[in-house]
Amino acid sequence: MRRYIAVDIGGTQVRAACYPASKLKSIKIARTTTQATDPEDPVTSPLERIQNLIASIWPADGKVCAISVAAPGPINPYQGILVEAPNIPGWINVPLQQNLSERFKVPVVLGNDANLAALGEWKYGAGKGHHHLIYLTVSTGIGGGVIIDDRLLLGANGLAAELGHTTVMIDGPLCGCGQRGHLEAVASGTAIANWVEAELSQGVQSILPIDKPVSAKRISEAAQKGDKLCIAALARAGHYIGRALADFLHIFNPSIVIIGGGVSKSGPLLLDPMYKAMQEHVLNPHYLDGLVLTTAAFGDEVGLVGALALGRTTYPDCRSKKS
Amino acid sequence: MRRYIAVDIGGTQVRAACYPASKLKSIKIARTTTQATDPEDPVTSPLERIQNLIASIWPADGKVCAISVAAPGPINPYQGILVEAPNIPGWINVPLQQNLSERFKVPVVLGNDANLAALGEWKYGAGKGHHHLIYLTVSTGIGGGVIIDDRLLLGANGLAAELGHTTVMIDGPLCGCGQRGHLEAVASGTAIANWVEAELSQGVQSILPIDKPVSAKRISEAAQKGDKLCIAALARAGHYIGRALADFLHIFNPSIVIIGGGVSKSGPLLLDPMYKAMQEHVLNPHYLDGLVLTTAAFGDEVGLVGALALGRTTYPDCRSKKS
Repeated sequence: MRRYIAVDIGGTQVRAACYPASKLKSIKIARTTTQATDPEDPVTSPLERIQNLIASIWPADGKVCAISVAAPGPINPYQGILVEAPNIPGWINVPLQQNLSERFKVPVVLGNDANLAALGEWKYGAGKGHHHLIYLTVSTGIGGGVIIDDRLLLGANGLAAELGHTTVMIDGPLCGCGQRGHLEAVASGTAIANWVEAELSQGVQSILPIDKPVSAKRISEAAQKGDKLCIAALARAGHYIGRALADFLHIFNPSIVIIGGGVSKSGPLLLDPMYKAMQEHVLNPHYLDGLVLTTAAFGDEVGLVGALALGRTTYPDCRSKKS
Repeated sequence: MRRYIAVDIGGTQVRAACYPASKLKSIKIARTTTQATDPEDPVTSPLERIQNLIASIWPADGKVCAISVAAPGPINPYQGILVEAPNIPGWINVPLQQNLSERFKVPVVLGNDANLAALGEWKYGAGKGHHHLIYLTVSTGIGGGVIIDDRLLLGANGLAAELGHTTVMIDGPLCGCGQRGHLEAVASGTAIANWVEAELSQGVQSILPIDKPVSAKRISEAAQKGDKLCIAALARAGHYIGRALADFLHIFNPSIVIIGGGVSKSGPLLLDPMYKAMQEHVLNPHYLDGLVLTTAAFGDEVGLVGALALGRTTYPDCRSKKS
């Protein structure tokens, strides 16, 4: 029986799982830290660690259709190159596809993690049956993935769908990318925490613990308990995401919008202001005709599920690569 | 010999042309006003006028592959319905495809004019050979068209690629669509004229004729003569378009950006500040790798050329409709 290997490379952790030809339950799964943490550990290169992890779940009969990899940061999916891995020092222009295919003698395919999350939700999750889909993950940063006519939007060099890096506030807060006022700089988990910290420093009252760092998770918890500052912080982020979504509707005219990522777990305190702003800022009610708004079906596992979707979509019969 | 009929419906004028199977030079071309202007004219309905116009260029042997129509405003290309024609009173949900195919007994296909301009530039003009293309027309309004993987971006209901209706200035000037701060409200020909008028009313000096209405065309002419206010107006519009383009690069990662429309004829006074702002606001230089920035190959004829591209792309062999 042929199998698919999916790999999810994160800044701190790498996961790999072996899947059967058609089901969503993995046969075998393993994880390791992306970089060696034990000074005694002889394996220090992230690449070797990934190779060993894949080898550890390799099926005994050796029958694997393809290895598919979800990776953060800019990647070139056409050339199978990790252009930059923000949290892995020294990983610049790593030819991961070539490396893994030489090592394991099977086809290898790479995708950006947010793009693949969109693909996973489209193929197996909240977006099943839709042909035009926007996926937005609101987490430490804000990432995006877009399905158009049942195809993943990649662009000329695979750098498309960076929906978190679109401007919602001219000359607004500094973004991690160096620009200002991007959606990510205004409404990500990091941005929410920054805004709350600035308010606290102005003397605004809150039930947030003063002895612990302010985080989106703690803000969400305090908001659920009725903390006004934290409720306002989530509403503000939701509002800006909703405004950006209205623009994205005008750009993509999707039939479904899926919100994922840790911050989306804040629920209605984030999502209600978001949907309200989106509806208020849409240019024409036709954009809302039949539009589905929903949260992601997958949580942390979306990296593996997305990579699996990429592997199965690219090599559906273990032979041909779909154009 | 089989032929294609292309129709370009404008607010004031309709044009129709008959083309051979593969060349860009029309065999026959005709035009009329969209609405009857002569009170003696017995034909008053725009639909009849369009039908008569098509009939007037119909080839004697009757051999036509398809009729393709470019129309302004929201249309549903899947259902062949003109949802709204802003400048033709009473034209709401006109089933143009059904009407024309019943009348002429050939396949009929509809497209939004800015989308089809993109398709025309991609197939025959400045974008030939590119697979990922953004077309922006800067005219009275700002329209967009996007080619992704050699396919026109349409969205679930054909309302996608409204690039002029994305927010560049929160709570900025009122847009024709009723929202605020859209690119169209800040940088279209109309917006440029509004801004200059506001400056003039503040007493800013200019060589613009005081006895004529301020228009983008007059502003462009005065700017070419060195008028500081008009130069500033074009630079301001270019700056905001450039900022928006940076976002569009992050969203679509195209290999070419084509600027069309009357205002683009202002040349470097608009385009230089535009390209500068785009480059300054891109998050990562990889988005500029090999990127071509250019102006449109077609002028007023782009409506017909775009419709022709749609007809030939949809019915390439006069029989099958490409999915």
